[in-house]
Amino acid sequence: MGNLDTLMQDLVIANRILAREEVVDAYGHVSVRHPDNPNRFLIARSLAPELVGPEDIVELDLDGQPVRDEDRSLYLERFIHAAIFAARPDVMAVVHAHAEDTLPFGIAQGTKLRPVIHSGSFIGTEVNLLVTDMAQASDLAKCLGANGVALMRGHGFAPAARSLIEVARLSVYLPRNARALMRARQLGGEIKYLSQGEIEARNRGYSPYSVETWRTWEYWANKAGCGHLLTRPEGGQARMPKG
Amino acid sequence: MGNLDTLMQDLVIANRILAREEVVDAYGHVSVRHPDNPNRFLIARSLAPELVGPEDIVELDLDGQPVRDEDRSLYLERFIHAAIFAARPDVMAVVHAHAEDTLPFGIAQGTKLRPVIHSGSFIGTEVNLLVTDMAQASDLAKCLGANGVALMRGHGFAPAARSLIEVARLSVYLPRNARALMRARQLGGEIKYLSQGEIEARNRGYSPYSVETWRTWEYWANKAGCGHLLTRPEGGQARMPKG
Amino acid sequence: MGNLDTLMQDLVIANRILAREEVVDAYGHVSVRHPDNPNRFLIARSLAPELVGPEDIVELDLDGQPVRDEDRSLYLERFIHAAIFAARPDVMAVVHAHAEDTLPFGIAQGTKLRPVIHSGSFIGTEVNLLVTDMAQASDLAKCLGANGVALMRGHGFAPAARSLIEVARLSVYLPRNARALMRARQLGGEIKYLSQGEIEARNRGYSPYSVETWRTWEYWANKAGCGHLLTRPEGGQARMPKG
Amino acid sequence: MGNLDTLMQDLVIANRILAREEVVDAYGHVSVRHPDNPNRFLIARSLAPELVGPEDIVELDLDGQPVRDEDRSLYLERFIHAAIFAARPDVMAVVHAHAEDTLPFGIAQGTKLRPVIHSGSFIGTEVNLLVTDMAQASDLAKCLGANGVALMRGHGFAPAARSLIEVARLSVYLPRNARALMRARQLGGEIKYLSQGEIEARNRGYSPYSVETWRTWEYWANKAGCGHLLTRPEGGQARMPKG
Repeated sequence: MGNLDTLMQDLVIANRILAREEVVDAYGHVSVRHPDNPNRFLIARSLAPELVGPEDIVELDLDGQPVRDEDRSLYLERFIHAAIFAARPDVMAVVHAHAEDTLPFGIAQGTKLRPVIHSGSFIGTEVNLLVTDMAQASDLAKCLGANGVALMRGHGFAPAARSLIEVARLSVYLPRNARALMRARQLGGEIKYLSQGEIEARNRGYSPYSVETWRTWEYWANKAGCGHLLTRPEGGQARMPKG
Repeated sequence: MGNLDTLMQDLVIANRILAREEVVDAYGHVSVRHPDNPNRFLIARSLAPELVGPEDIVELDLDGQPVRDEDRSLYLERFIHAAIFAARPDVMAVVHAHAEDTLPFGIAQGTKLRPVIHSGSFIGTEVNLLVTDMAQASDLAKCLGANGVALMRGHGFAPAARSLIEVARLSVYLPRNARALMRARQLGGEIKYLSQGEIEARNRGYSPYSVETWRTWEYWANKAGCGHLLTRPEGGQARMPKG
Repeated sequence: MGNLDTLMQDLVIANRILAREEVVDAYGHVSVRHPDNPNRFLIARSLAPELVGPEDIVELDLDGQPVRDEDRSLYLERFIHAAIFAARPDVMAVVHAHAEDTLPFGIAQGTKLRPVIHSGSFIGTEVNLLVTDMAQASDLAKCLGANGVALMRGHGFAPAARSLIEVARLSVYLPRNARALMRARQLGGEIKYLSQGEIEARNRGYSPYSVETWRTWEYWANKAGCGHLLTRPEGGQARMPKG
Repeated sequence: MGNLDTLMQDLVIANRILAREEVVDAYGHVSVRHPDNPNRFLIARSLAPELVGPEDIVELDLDGQPVRDEDRSLYLERFIHAAIFAARPDVMAVVHAHAEDTLPFGIAQGTKLRPVIHSGSFIGTEVNLLVTDMAQASDLAKCLGANGVALMRGHGFAPAARSLIEVARLSVYLPRNARALMRARQLGGEIKYLSQGEIEARNRGYSPYSVETWRTWEYWANKAGCGHLLTRPEGGQARMPKG
């Protein structure tokens, strides 16, 4: 299978994983930059991520316009993806989602969403919060700045990352970090956030293509019922689920 | 399929969706006004919504009486539906349910159920709370006033809307807004509710028949295992779930 | 089918319902008094309720001893059931379970488990709490007193009722009432408990054999995958689940 | 089946149970000491526990090195297991996991993780908390000391026990005890922890090979879809799930 075909298949997997892990429902979407043309990106037509198949993937330019004739409806929020890909050449994959457990941090003024668990270290010191009603896509792209994720008040969040696997990982672990912090707040007493040193040490050690990262992707894909779509990495062992 | 047949099928879908999304269990029901006779409405016989099929739909008048001979049991609370349809000619669909996460707002006196997430803007400034023990159905209809939803202390809630799709949406997003607000309260600090301006802007932009609304209905129907009952809208693309 | 056979089948259904509704797991059990001999009761052999079939039901006397030769293991806590049946001739069915959401009320001293939702009115004014480490079964039976449910600190709860359907209902709604009260406490402000008048009015209106009660039993049995075991009540409409 | 074969099958069951009970996801692992050679232990190759089969089990020495040629990837954290088996000859089985509901107790300084429910009595007086960033495996082994479980801040927990069944039980009940304590804290008022006397009485009465322990293992294995892998204990009754 060619590079593009594999990536489209991976994009289907990412859609299903995000649905299964309850990061997206009917709303929310994931996109990936075109492997051969950095001025284009791939995203599903307007469809709930759980239902997305390869035939639903469309190719858009950095203005959010389809590069081929298209009579199917497209996501209204595709412009958020386009703006991030345009503003951030280092970004290869973007999610925009409404995962419930991140919402309280955009509503309550008393607690910032900061990393408290090791797998939340990608958040950086704290999540940027967009407080304007309707964040303009370009503001969002700017807000992502050094960090990999932005929070939109009353609305959701948008992580950007260097690969599909990594953006899926951020999307699953941000709500998990949010839950751990919410519950810690309920327990009372001082909160021990990850220190700047811990965050940096952890992020230095992280590789988006490690054995551990692949294990997660393989697990989530199987859970989401699309283990059969996995492309076996060089030298790795792809596995089908057991009954 | 005729207009009435389609609507009955949609009512079956709405029953299954509300069950799958845990808005109703053995209790709770959804009804829709008759498309050809505004003095009648359709609702299931006394049966848990998850089990409802087309043959379980009965036609009632605005006194809650069946318009045809009926020897099967009917919901005791059908009079709530009848009273709302009688008092509010603009209402096309009604739900009455006990979704768990809305209940605390009828029990605790310290926090009103107000919109904090964009998809909760239909709540209006705040939810009306019926504090009488056994709310009379006509009081409930009055209480719905300008807003689309009323809360009954220790009992549940009743949203009314312009379509089945919309009433399902309200029923799913009211508990979600409730959860976001509960968790924000736990985080502490001031709560940022949606402003009157945000509520109005959001509600102005909402269309009960938009591409986005259909995407949600299609997604929920598939999740509830009745994607095959969907009626494809003009020009749309109905989709079956993937394995 | 004879009276005893029907009751044994209903006991199987009750086991599966309590498992599906997460009231019991490997621990927890449900029993019913023998229909023809008030000095005996039926309960499963030592087996997780989700796995119980008709062949696993054993008949015990009010000392908790099997009335027939039995080489299979029995629940250690069957003596709790025996003691309640011995002390309370009005009781026809007993559950002993560890449902997670009731536990905090036996641990925190600040909030009593009292009814806040209509379907929790069976609790009475408040749940009795056994604070001794290892509650003696006879103490438990006494503690049940006028109320239908006792709470055991750090351990679980035991409801007793006039029928299997009713004891299942109590077992599902006690945790639900507990959750609503916990969340109301988090919201802050004064708690509006059901008043004595409301509790009495509600309990007066309740019938363990009403159309509504059957609807719940039918729904739960279908959800638990044993709708096919349901015995259709006279004049009722038993229903199988839809795909 | 030989002793080793049975144990390997039990290790597969333990992997699946921990996945099904949400103690592990893509991360987290379970190991067991070799039945014939106390200087070796069995653990899966680098694979999500839900996907583990008998062919994925590898044999390692107490330095964490495979005793046979192995070209498949291994868990990075296998050294934690090795160090515990080396330091604690009484330990037969080890889990290392990240179960979400234990994490807040490593983050909030205000509440220690102590037993509040009977099935949490294995915790001892309180869980030891490793506050160093990257706990050295040997520190962890030491920290386990008299207790059976250690908590690692922002990371997870590690229980050690005398058998696979017991380590699975600890791994499921630690998060349950954590949830009960978190919710009790929300209810307010003084917390009634298990007393030293209650803890000792409970632990004295516990047998890792009792009828009750087997019932739990059987139940969890069936829930995890691998009831068919169960080895029937002498004189026991293994059971398959019912439809």
